[in-house]
Amino acid sequence: MTYNEKIMEEVKYLIEKGDNKTLKEYFSSLEIPDKAYLIAHLSDDEKLLVFSPLGIEEKTELIPELDDYSLEIIIEALDSDELSKIANSLDVDEAVDLIAEVEDYRRDQVVGKVKRSDQIRALLKFGPDTAAGIMTLKFMSINGKDNVSTAQEELRKVREEEEYKYIYILDDDGRLKGYVTPWKILTSPPEKKLEELAEDIHSVTADLDQEAVANIAGDYDLLQVPVVDNFGHLLGVITIDDLVDVMEEEATEDIQYLGGLGTIETAFYPARRSFVSRLPWLYINLLTALLAALVVGCFEDVIQAFIGAAIFMPVVAGMGGNAGTQTLSIMVRGLALGEVRYADIKRLLWKEIGVGFLTGFAVGVVTSLIAYFWKGSPLFGVVVGLALILNHIAAGLFGVLIPLILDKVGVDPAHASSIFLTTVTDVFGFFALLGLTKAIMM
Amino acid sequence: MTYNEKIMEEVKYLIEKGDNKTLKEYFSSLEIPDKAYLIAHLSDDEKLLVFSPLGIEEKTELIPELDDYSLEIIIEALDSDELSKIANSLDVDEAVDLIAEVEDYRRDQVVGKVKRSDQIRALLKFGPDTAAGIMTLKFMSINGKDNVSTAQEELRKVREEEEYKYIYILDDDGRLKGYVTPWKILTSPPEKKLEELAEDIHSVTADLDQEAVANIAGDYDLLQVPVVDNFGHLLGVITIDDLVDVMEEEATEDIQYLGGLGTIETAFYPARRSFVSRLPWLYINLLTALLAALVVGCFEDVIQAFIGAAIFMPVVAGMGGNAGTQTLSIMVRGLALGEVRYADIKRLLWKEIGVGFLTGFAVGVVTSLIAYFWKGSPLFGVVVGLALILNHIAAGLFGVLIPLILDKVGVDPAHASSIFLTTVTDVFGFFALLGLTKAIMM
Repeated sequence: MTYNEKIMEEVKYLIEKGDNKTLKEYFSSLEIPDKAYLIAHLSDDEKLLVFSPLGIEEKTELIPELDDYSLEIIIEALDSDELSKIANSLDVDEAVDLIAEVEDYRRDQVVGKVKRSDQIRALLKFGPDTAAGIMTLKFMSINGKDNVSTAQEELRKVREEEEYKYIYILDDDGRLKGYVTPWKILTSPPEKKLEELAEDIHSVTADLDQEAVANIAGDYDLLQVPVVDNFGHLLGVITIDDLVDVMEEEATEDIQYLGGLGTIETAFYPARRSFVSRLPWLYINLLTALLAALVVGCFEDVIQAFIGAAIFMPVVAGMGGNAGTQTLSIMVRGLALGEVRYADIKRLLWKEIGVGFLTGFAVGVVTSLIAYFWKGSPLFGVVVGLALILNHIAAGLFGVLIPLILDKVGVDPAHASSIFLTTVTDVFGFFALLGLTKAIMM
Repeated sequence: MTYNEKIMEEVKYLIEKGDNKTLKEYFSSLEIPDKAYLIAHLSDDEKLLVFSPLGIEEKTELIPELDDYSLEIIIEALDSDELSKIANSLDVDEAVDLIAEVEDYRRDQVVGKVKRSDQIRALLKFGPDTAAGIMTLKFMSINGKDNVSTAQEELRKVREEEEYKYIYILDDDGRLKGYVTPWKILTSPPEKKLEELAEDIHSVTADLDQEAVANIAGDYDLLQVPVVDNFGHLLGVITIDDLVDVMEEEATEDIQYLGGLGTIETAFYPARRSFVSRLPWLYINLLTALLAALVVGCFEDVIQAFIGAAIFMPVVAGMGGNAGTQTLSIMVRGLALGEVRYADIKRLLWKEIGVGFLTGFAVGVVTSLIAYFWKGSPLFGVVVGLALILNHIAAGLFGVLIPLILDKVGVDPAHASSIFLTTVTDVFGFFALLGLTKAIMM
């Protein structure tokens, strides 16, 4: 039994026993990530049962670590007073994240009760998935004209818990000029000007997408990314732990979108909610499946005359779908990591068409032999082989084009790529197989 | 035109012009991540053309940042002397990563020429995807019995470039007891014992999978993860920038494995190589597609008697595949992030069977009406609807079971899940549709 399973069993036992006092004590004794793990795995009622008795301080610590679904359940159960108290105890960026999750109808009410409401209103205006949406306002900055001894004084004023890893150097207009480390400030000559010590740093603009920020941090091995406005004024700082969360979130999105989900789910969503969130995409899929069925319907005569065509329908369509999904997953990941650009399109198209031809040929030869021996018609073998080659080429072509076009029109390429692609490979595959059968064999 | 496109155009222009001197100067003037971006996007010959003229120091800086494929091409072109020179200039963990990529037949030869060959041989024994495989040996540790002033002296000896963010505190046996920050050492009373200042830290064992390490770092917001042996002795340290790379790599793996690739590719693999790496999985897919075809073959009489069945084959099989893939992508991601455990299996099974029934019913009702109006037979409408409900339930069931079983037997659940799942939904879907048609209508 793992540690997580052990604490889960203990909590379940205490809930069943109804021993709320011991439950509260036991839950409070756990580390924050373990508390978050437990709440994620409990039912809606149980989530509230363990969360509600906690003191404000414990609630405040726990809230930024909760999964989205548990947070939603807990926010619903908290009244505006308690929400604003918790928001007041949080760092301002975390308070903004919390308030952004509050239901529309009472968000203004909560913001009205919060201390730093102007700041929070300003930050709420940025999209939650932008650089400004994930930055913290807790950072230290000093004018570059100041000298090291001034900086040392400033540093000693900072409370111990808020140990800053970087101190940002600004010019007289508040524009970011670079950074120094506390270590450097403590070991440099006191009369030295800070601007002479400042080292260059990469910054991002407030409206940049969080995924792009994470890619920059990853490429340049940054532990903090300062956020500036269009004039270069320092607005806030994104820390690496928040960027790690962003990477996790973006990868989850890509995986689940590619898997045909319209909105992100955790495994522990209640069934009714999963049903509601999955159904729309299944209906869209149904439309495209019916389109493929329509193509089959147009060739009823072919199938009636030559039953073998019906047997190889799933092979031709399915293999095209598989080959196209291979291309698609490489493209979607390449776009997400910023490795693939529009300038690469021509080269990638030719490459994937080439690979499509090669795999289509390799799969086609084997399948056409099987079709020949199964149905006793060499001509039908050729038809099946040709249909496979054509469908693999279409798969390569559209495996590149679909994600690039979606990206171009501003849709996450992971989002609907699979649906469009399998529509193409189903429809085109059936057309190729049944059309060629009709043209060559009838 | 983005900055990356601009530098790419400039480099392409210089290569075409054959102006190798300006090319070298221009390339050297770029930042390391931009150099890595360029090399990733150039053809094999061009990669070598820009890399080869660089000095050892530039090569050394660039090598840890290269993508796997470019690294392979470049290693092939380097002789053992140059490889060992570069390895000597790298940090020992990076040297190990480099040497692990060297072709088997001359790896020993390269290791033999390298300075820290004992250390490197020891580290090569750990899997590249384990905690020990990604740790660095560059860290600072001090005995907890020492006092602050000793630590201050030690700190001042460290070269400026190697600024340590954590200093690890050990007991007399070299076991990890906690950490202190340089800031704390500089601001605490000189006679204070370090063990009194030490703060607790999470550590991992040497053989833990890198994905699990990244999850721990993410959950606990760690910037460094110390690696210990089974007795608690400190072996090395994993830094956050390496963990960020691990997260990126693991997400790429999950996305591409789910997309039906057997080995990880970048978009810029040459076509021949992509062909070779994709074909085996396509052949496995072909086997499963033929299995589905075999099921259809068993029901030739049904199709001949009732052509509508052929038309709705792709709908029933495809919708089951879609519903199952939704479940699958949630499960695979949940397992990768450590959110889903074996203890959850019963609950998740019931949930997904329930969702499968609900979505199957919702999709089935619409489709059965369409089938009824299209083919004029209310009975056939009922058959199609029933087949869809049954296939959606199977999809939910196997969408949960397949990744859990793969995980249990030690296979990455992302790896082959899709193939197994679509085999189930194809075979079961055809069986349900054609079998029900036979049973009810003939």
